[in-house]
Amino acid sequence: MRIGVVAPSSPLSAGTADRVIAIAAASCPGVTLHFHPQCFLAHNHFAGPDEVRADAFVDYANDPEIDAIWFARGGYGACRIAETAIERLGDAARGKAYLGYSDAGFLLAGLYRAGFPRLAHGPMPQDVHRDGGDMAVLRALSWLAGCSPVGMEAAPGDGKAVAFNLTVFSQLLGTALEPDLEDHVLMLEEVSEYMYRIDRSMFHVASNFADRGLSGIRLGRCSDVLANDPDFGETEEQVVRFWCRHAGIPYLGRADIGHDADNKIVPFGSS
Amino acid sequence: MRIGVVAPSSPLSAGTADRVIAIAAASCPGVTLHFHPQCFLAHNHFAGPDEVRADAFVDYANDPEIDAIWFARGGYGACRIAETAIERLGDAARGKAYLGYSDAGFLLAGLYRAGFPRLAHGPMPQDVHRDGGDMAVLRALSWLAGCSPVGMEAAPGDGKAVAFNLTVFSQLLGTALEPDLEDHVLMLEEVSEYMYRIDRSMFHVASNFADRGLSGIRLGRCSDVLANDPDFGETEEQVVRFWCRHAGIPYLGRADIGHDADNKIVPFGSS
Repeated sequence: MRIGVVAPSSPLSAGTADRVIAIAAASCPGVTLHFHPQCFLAHNHFAGPDEVRADAFVDYANDPEIDAIWFARGGYGACRIAETAIERLGDAARGKAYLGYSDAGFLLAGLYRAGFPRLAHGPMPQDVHRDGGDMAVLRALSWLAGCSPVGMEAAPGDGKAVAFNLTVFSQLLGTALEPDLEDHVLMLEEVSEYMYRIDRSMFHVASNFADRGLSGIRLGRCSDVLANDPDFGETEEQVVRFWCRHAGIPYLGRADIGHDADNKIVPFGSS
Repeated sequence: MRIGVVAPSSPLSAGTADRVIAIAAASCPGVTLHFHPQCFLAHNHFAGPDEVRADAFVDYANDPEIDAIWFARGGYGACRIAETAIERLGDAARGKAYLGYSDAGFLLAGLYRAGFPRLAHGPMPQDVHRDGGDMAVLRALSWLAGCSPVGMEAAPGDGKAVAFNLTVFSQLLGTALEPDLEDHVLMLEEVSEYMYRIDRSMFHVASNFADRGLSGIRLGRCSDVLANDPDFGETEEQVVRFWCRHAGIPYLGRADIGHDADNKIVPFGSS
């Protein structure tokens, strides 16, 4: 089982890769991790220029010797390459598992729209730095290796689901990356935003999905919410309930996802 | 000439209103300003609860004794009331001029979609606090009062134009507030955002308008750009050129608009 790691957004440190490789070696016999050298490049905000990040992703995704693709971390940059990179993917890419969240959501969305069957929101190598990060890494590896579904937020039989960072999801609406989410549960989490921006993003997302057959929205954790001046006066759950009601979308309660080590795996679709 | 001022977003201080009233009294004979008491309310982030802000706007807009509506300031909150408030507007509201920018763009967008003929992006009462703010206020009053087009970014005969704050415009795409911009020049300005977010918003906006007949994009000022860590490595103009090229939208150069006292008037449409 060969897992290829690429960084479509911000760069990873070599030390981070070493820690994740050590965890896999100790706990996942038969799994080998292959960090593409592109992960460690730095170009402005990104792990290398656009074409270098795109090439690394496409090379590993199209490589029949690689069984699964794991996105190294979030940050920013995946939207700059997603559309054109996905167009370059062939049959070998289609059968693989792809795992990530946060900024990697741009790629997961586009891949889902393109009909790729094995996608999931879940922890990334950079999460090893969080408290409890080892467990997050193991949760990710167990899903990528096709092991038993430990630490899954959406289990087989739960119906179709997807999960995204709220801001990332907001910013891909109406683009060539937006998937059809009819009959899906949409799980959303957020980090490091002001509550007024969470409110504004929820206006955007919920209004876009009025009368479009979404099964409902579940709210993940909103962590490190920035201090609103004056106080916003509503919690994230009040905000999400408000906009769901406004748009006629069922609010289905909380989801166990977020920018933290407890972030569960959410397989896209009904897989 | 009676100009009604309402605050669909954040509150105004009474002192700000007094300063603006004094400017109008000294320089605009025949113009009277009527600040709705709602402007001075405070409820969490907003100038009063949603229904109070909506009622004030609808009351003044539908009042045949009021000739024009001037939005008091930006901040946040207009998207929470725009759709339902616009549905309550009658014939008296349709003939009026409406002026504002920033968060007021949510209302201007929805009014433009609803076919209101006299809308413009331009300075608001709160701008009196900027360096040179008196001139910004006079520029706004001259347009509201139907005087000669001094300080206009888009003049009659220039073709159809609209102007928005980039983030606000991004967040209304795909909602019931999004106007049809076929054959329009879209002017965008930004304030207090990281460059990576300007890039991400431009991905969102440009990708939404690929193949939709936009005449082009003009870039206003991006002021108080927050320090990107690491440096983003591209200017706002490089970013906008990049995304315009990506989406096949003509980039038409800079526009003299922004969150500052030089912010010019942009009448919506070809008026």
